[in-house]
Amino acid sequence: MPEATPFDAREFRNTLSTFTTGVTIITTVGADEQPVGITVNSFNSVSLNPPMVLWSLARTSRSAAIFDNADHWGVHILSADQEALSNRFAKSGEDKFTGVDMEKGVGGIPLLPGCVSRLQCRTRFKYDGGDHLIFVGEVLHFDRSECIPLVFQAGKYAIAARKGDDKYGSSSAVSDIPTSFGEDFLAYLVTRSHFQVYARIRERLQQVDLDDASWFVISSLTAKGDRTLAELNGMYEITGSRLEPRMLAGLESRGLLVKGGAEVGAALSLTEAGSALAWQVLAEEKALEADLESKLGRAEAATLKNLLRQLIRLTDPGLPDMWGRSL
Amino acid sequence: MPEATPFDAREFRNTLSTFTTGVTIITTVGADEQPVGITVNSFNSVSLNPPMVLWSLARTSRSAAIFDNADHWGVHILSADQEALSNRFAKSGEDKFTGVDMEKGVGGIPLLPGCVSRLQCRTRFKYDGGDHLIFVGEVLHFDRSECIPLVFQAGKYAIAARKGDDKYGSSSAVSDIPTSFGEDFLAYLVTRSHFQVYARIRERLQQVDLDDASWFVISSLTAKGDRTLAELNGMYEITGSRLEPRMLAGLESRGLLVKGGAEVGAALSLTEAGSALAWQVLAEEKALEADLESKLGRAEAATLKNLLRQLIRLTDPGLPDMWGRSL
Repeated sequence: MPEATPFDAREFRNTLSTFTTGVTIITTVGADEQPVGITVNSFNSVSLNPPMVLWSLARTSRSAAIFDNADHWGVHILSADQEALSNRFAKSGEDKFTGVDMEKGVGGIPLLPGCVSRLQCRTRFKYDGGDHLIFVGEVLHFDRSECIPLVFQAGKYAIAARKGDDKYGSSSAVSDIPTSFGEDFLAYLVTRSHFQVYARIRERLQQVDLDDASWFVISSLTAKGDRTLAELNGMYEITGSRLEPRMLAGLESRGLLVKGGAEVGAALSLTEAGSALAWQVLAEEKALEADLESKLGRAEAATLKNLLRQLIRLTDPGLPDMWGRSL
Repeated sequence: MPEATPFDAREFRNTLSTFTTGVTIITTVGADEQPVGITVNSFNSVSLNPPMVLWSLARTSRSAAIFDNADHWGVHILSADQEALSNRFAKSGEDKFTGVDMEKGVGGIPLLPGCVSRLQCRTRFKYDGGDHLIFVGEVLHFDRSECIPLVFQAGKYAIAARKGDDKYGSSSAVSDIPTSFGEDFLAYLVTRSHFQVYARIRERLQQVDLDDASWFVISSLTAKGDRTLAELNGMYEITGSRLEPRMLAGLESRGLLVKGGAEVGAALSLTEAGSALAWQVLAEEKALEADLESKLGRAEAATLKNLLRQLIRLTDPGLPDMWGRSL
């Protein structure tokens, strides 16, 4: 028999929390017609025929007596946008439903909007579960949306992204074999992703005779006009290149750009033609974005963006933001 | 009352599957001493004091009678590396334990290695759960590792990454407001990530007097030697630039590179000095990688890499791989 961890309540909770769950709010209505709701992650499915689900509630919970007497309750599987709602219903308080746009379900139970799915249940069994009561309900009605589910793991909110391959554990540790040295490196993957995605944009830029630097200037001025060459270079320097006055003169002579004065430090703005060209390319970037997002999957695209934002914060060199506000 | 979906078994399963779960294998031993195990995601915690967990099993399952008679069973919360094991134990078959390096737990139950955590339980209650039996067990022993948990959502394996902000649902849809146009774009986030991460590498490259193109040549030849300028340009063209013979001549005159002949198409290799310089920089890239991974978190770094690999596959222009084999 392997050596067992000495029984420690905190360590036991930590161990249980390695089992990932969704997050639900379970609601019912008391004898006084007051809506009651509580955040619960001890939910799971039980039976398909008859359709049944279960969850458990601490006997010491303020709402334990109300649920114990309830004939019906509603399970709301929360979406990634409902973290604040989850927090609100996890605390005790009288005002949980304030400002929530409720509907009424079977037996008058309150139904919350914006969830991934909802199950309206009739209490079928109540079982002894130690310091908790186990509720088993028969599902009478249910509905489902396309929202991205909220996930709970190791005490933190999370989002689940589809697993693409088996490179996750210690076996994905960086190897010293030269031929595979960089392939699993984040830096390599980010760089290759950038070049492959940007290559699609560059194709379009070539058709309208813009190089990378010119497009940087034009798209930056679309986001926020009246910037000087020095300001633009302050943002561009992270690329390792510099914007040249000669390139700006080229855009000016094509009627895409105007300078606010003759001096070198004069602010630059787009002309109407420059702005029109920018929006034309940006519309195609938007189409590319929609294409990538639909192929990756919505939850995957959202998770990838979320993680890239974290990476950007981690590697922030303190440069001004390209789009005029922080991420 | 909101309009209810007509009761459809398949739609009911789809709705239940929006509740995210971890994945467990539950094992026991039959009267014939044969180990038995089954993949289960209907697990959850129940009670802290006494420590209890539950799960449910279809009454029609081949192992239902064995679990019904079992005094003890073990719950294995699977790691992201155990997808194949999960699949194996999800099917019926006699050879599930073949080649698995088992230990024996309480009551002789088989314990599997490589899990996130394990809970050894004594059967405490068995309850009616419609077409399933609900097993409630008291946890006698448990142990936990630092593996990344395997997640199951909407019928697919997934990995959960910490949620960084609230930009997930419909509210994160691309806006038409110019000043925020690109900020939430994947293309923008990938590009900014690339430049910020690469800026750290570039700092180091400048100290050893290498520009981006020279570093591309040297690191590529470290991965695989004897490549011609044309071959290198075939990989480099996605950056929108070209490698110039003049740059190669510079590396040659610094003693970092040798050509296999005088002709233009001669294969290039690193000298010992070139190789030593490459490994010096690569060691620092490795340190940067470890730093980013520890700051992001292991599950988050693994998920980010996984999603970038998917993005790379989606946007693959059919170029030869930089490191000589496919991702």
